[in-house]
Amino acid sequence: MFKQLLANVRQKGPLVHNITNYVTVNDCANVLLACGASPIMAEDIGEVEEITAICNGLNINIGTLTAATIPAMLAAGKKANQLQHPLVLDPVGAGASKLRTETALKLLAELRFTVIRGNASEVKTLATGFLAGSPAESNSIADSAGGTKGVDVNVADSITEENLDEAVTFAKRFAAASGAVIVITGAIDIVADSAKAFCIRNGHPMLSKITGAGCMLSAMTAAYLAANPHKPLEAGAAAVCAMGLCGERVFARLAAREGNAAYRNYLIDEIYHLSGEELEEGARYEVR
Amino acid sequence: MFKQLLANVRQKGPLVHNITNYVTVNDCANVLLACGASPIMAEDIGEVEEITAICNGLNINIGTLTAATIPAMLAAGKKANQLQHPLVLDPVGAGASKLRTETALKLLAELRFTVIRGNASEVKTLATGFLAGSPAESNSIADSAGGTKGVDVNVADSITEENLDEAVTFAKRFAAASGAVIVITGAIDIVADSAKAFCIRNGHPMLSKITGAGCMLSAMTAAYLAANPHKPLEAGAAAVCAMGLCGERVFARLAAREGNAAYRNYLIDEIYHLSGEELEEGARYEVR
Amino acid sequence: MFKQLLANVRQKGPLVHNITNYVTVNDCANVLLACGASPIMAEDIGEVEEITAICNGLNINIGTLTAATIPAMLAAGKKANQLQHPLVLDPVGAGASKLRTETALKLLAELRFTVIRGNASEVKTLATGFLAGSPAESNSIADSAGGTKGVDVNVADSITEENLDEAVTFAKRFAAASGAVIVITGAIDIVADSAKAFCIRNGHPMLSKITGAGCMLSAMTAAYLAANPHKPLEAGAAAVCAMGLCGERVFARLAAREGNAAYRNYLIDEIYHLSGEELEEGARYEVR
Repeated sequence: MFKQLLANVRQKGPLVHNITNYVTVNDCANVLLACGASPIMAEDIGEVEEITAICNGLNINIGTLTAATIPAMLAAGKKANQLQHPLVLDPVGAGASKLRTETALKLLAELRFTVIRGNASEVKTLATGFLAGSPAESNSIADSAGGTKGVDVNVADSITEENLDEAVTFAKRFAAASGAVIVITGAIDIVADSAKAFCIRNGHPMLSKITGAGCMLSAMTAAYLAANPHKPLEAGAAAVCAMGLCGERVFARLAAREGNAAYRNYLIDEIYHLSGEELEEGARYEVR
Repeated sequence: MFKQLLANVRQKGPLVHNITNYVTVNDCANVLLACGASPIMAEDIGEVEEITAICNGLNINIGTLTAATIPAMLAAGKKANQLQHPLVLDPVGAGASKLRTETALKLLAELRFTVIRGNASEVKTLATGFLAGSPAESNSIADSAGGTKGVDVNVADSITEENLDEAVTFAKRFAAASGAVIVITGAIDIVADSAKAFCIRNGHPMLSKITGAGCMLSAMTAAYLAANPHKPLEAGAAAVCAMGLCGERVFARLAAREGNAAYRNYLIDEIYHLSGEELEEGARYEVR
Repeated sequence: MFKQLLANVRQKGPLVHNITNYVTVNDCANVLLACGASPIMAEDIGEVEEITAICNGLNINIGTLTAATIPAMLAAGKKANQLQHPLVLDPVGAGASKLRTETALKLLAELRFTVIRGNASEVKTLATGFLAGSPAESNSIADSAGGTKGVDVNVADSITEENLDEAVTFAKRFAAASGAVIVITGAIDIVADSAKAFCIRNGHPMLSKITGAGCMLSAMTAAYLAANPHKPLEAGAAAVCAMGLCGERVFARLAAREGNAAYRNYLIDEIYHLSGEELEEGARYEVR
């Protein structure tokens, strides 16, 4: 299945609009090209709606948020929603400052995201705020999943085999409440909608030694979604497996004295060459 | 001839002011250093005129335009004009949004550019708007070249051997109207003033698989112009040949599993080592 | 001694807040990861104080200053001072424009920096303005070091064996007046407090052929300071030696046709692998 999802990215070459941070933006652009998509970056309120309209998907990343970009994110997101374009949120640093947390929650309140991707702590921050501020949704989660708000967000900041079931339950509930596929990346990755979760064991710790692995994954996820609009859960899982698998393979390629700069370059190169067969065979996941 | 033009860049080491996008800015800085020039990036209206004044050329790139940078581009451009510094416009994405198209046209209306460099579709967008808004220039083009405004911009979005003559005519006319050397990059590149066009067959399709090849070329063109102020046509052609030639040579160097990240790095490295002899021998062009 | 200082960085993994330019920001983030620290970039006035508060050090770099970032730099700097976090200033381009010079001086007037790092000309610009505007401090320098204001800043723009003594005297005086450790990088590097100066002969001219060597050093200095808060002079010297030593070793590794892109990547990789023993053995300095 993943084979076809990647083939669609390479064949359709979706154009992805990114409103993202200036730290990893170049890597995001190159990773989009590597996977078969094309990037456009635009963040001025005067053009974001038009740019989104000519694209096939939108990736919003709050990594270096400014007062000027927040309304642009909202405007572009609304246009993407209106056009039914896939919409990804990367809530970088949610929980680290009020501005980030509140902006992420505002985006979540006003937009319908196809995928929300963050680490456990960022996603927890979002879920806590979202459920606190949305009694209706909160109730519907409780109804559909039998949990309580308190339990929903009572998940560890780092996902291990021991707390995986609990984290899966949390992800499914937040997916049900938000309507988005929830992607939590870490030692084990979870990609969940309200009913089904991929638990993914690809990846390598070295991915945390470069800046932008998460940002690149979010951008690439938007490309997978844009090329596979009717399979958001599977597209999200395929993107996560692709990044993780490339991260593993690339670590093995590092020579003596090669470090995180080489690793970053090799990672993008590996995504450039990754074939559908390799992805299909290398993806290591179970469905819960 | 190209040999001497490159030698002048390396010997004079011009300082190039860039007001450019945040996606490829690091590559632009490193490519300027690679070719023998030095970069300064500055975009606040409070300093751009002073910075331009201490530089030898200015490169304006609208890749991630914001409301704040537009007046800075105009102010810096006017100062560059006043000091007779070479001035390059890279109208990234002109045609993709009103903001980009109108800003590019505003810059074109208020500033005298030495070189305008874009792909066929960006340059067409500019030419259409410029000629529509400037009846006088439009007439003079028609007078001098016998064409009409409608025909002028009736050029394909991708230049091939079949439509090359037509594209050359278009480029020369836009050069005559704007006063700038027009550089259209694609499978075949055109560098034209009103009388003469270099048709360049260097380059490699892999250049379109990295972000920033065009931005880097525009920055490097500013360096070539600054070091060769009295030969804008030849300097523009030399810069295009240099980028294309390096793009070819570098593709041959890629090992298995090396992709666009390696290609980007090798490209800058190749520009770093490119000798005048290599450029002279490797440049493949005809003059029409 | 340097061995332990680096060990502390790797063991404590300090979180460093950077308000920096968009040209070299990705390299700054990766070099922080390479040396064992973690980066956060945040520049909106709405969050910089909170972000600084959760970090262990702050690095302010004025490389692409905008009107919006100046108040954020001041607010974050005040918070860092209040929390006694180490604070680094990289006055990129001070002297090149009024905006940069005045902003650097304003920062210097309102904040207490742990380290100020620039090239000779940037530091001279700062010292001149600082001493002119601060008669009290100026007098105290004259008192403590016997010099005059005119002499204080009468240092060459490039440090050589011939003018080294004079430059050391200048650095010590500016350190005394400002309360900061002064780091002047060039062919010979000086790291000085009011009493003692490390004269460092590590480094390689190729470091000036990449963009961001100075920015990366400033970011890394913040990490060394954060992990060694009671030894600012030694931590600054260790960071300078580490960057210079890696710059030397990496040059030797360059293959034919490898240029500044390879050099940048290798540099970060070398910092990633640099051991305390290698730093201790490779550091070449004398104390004056």
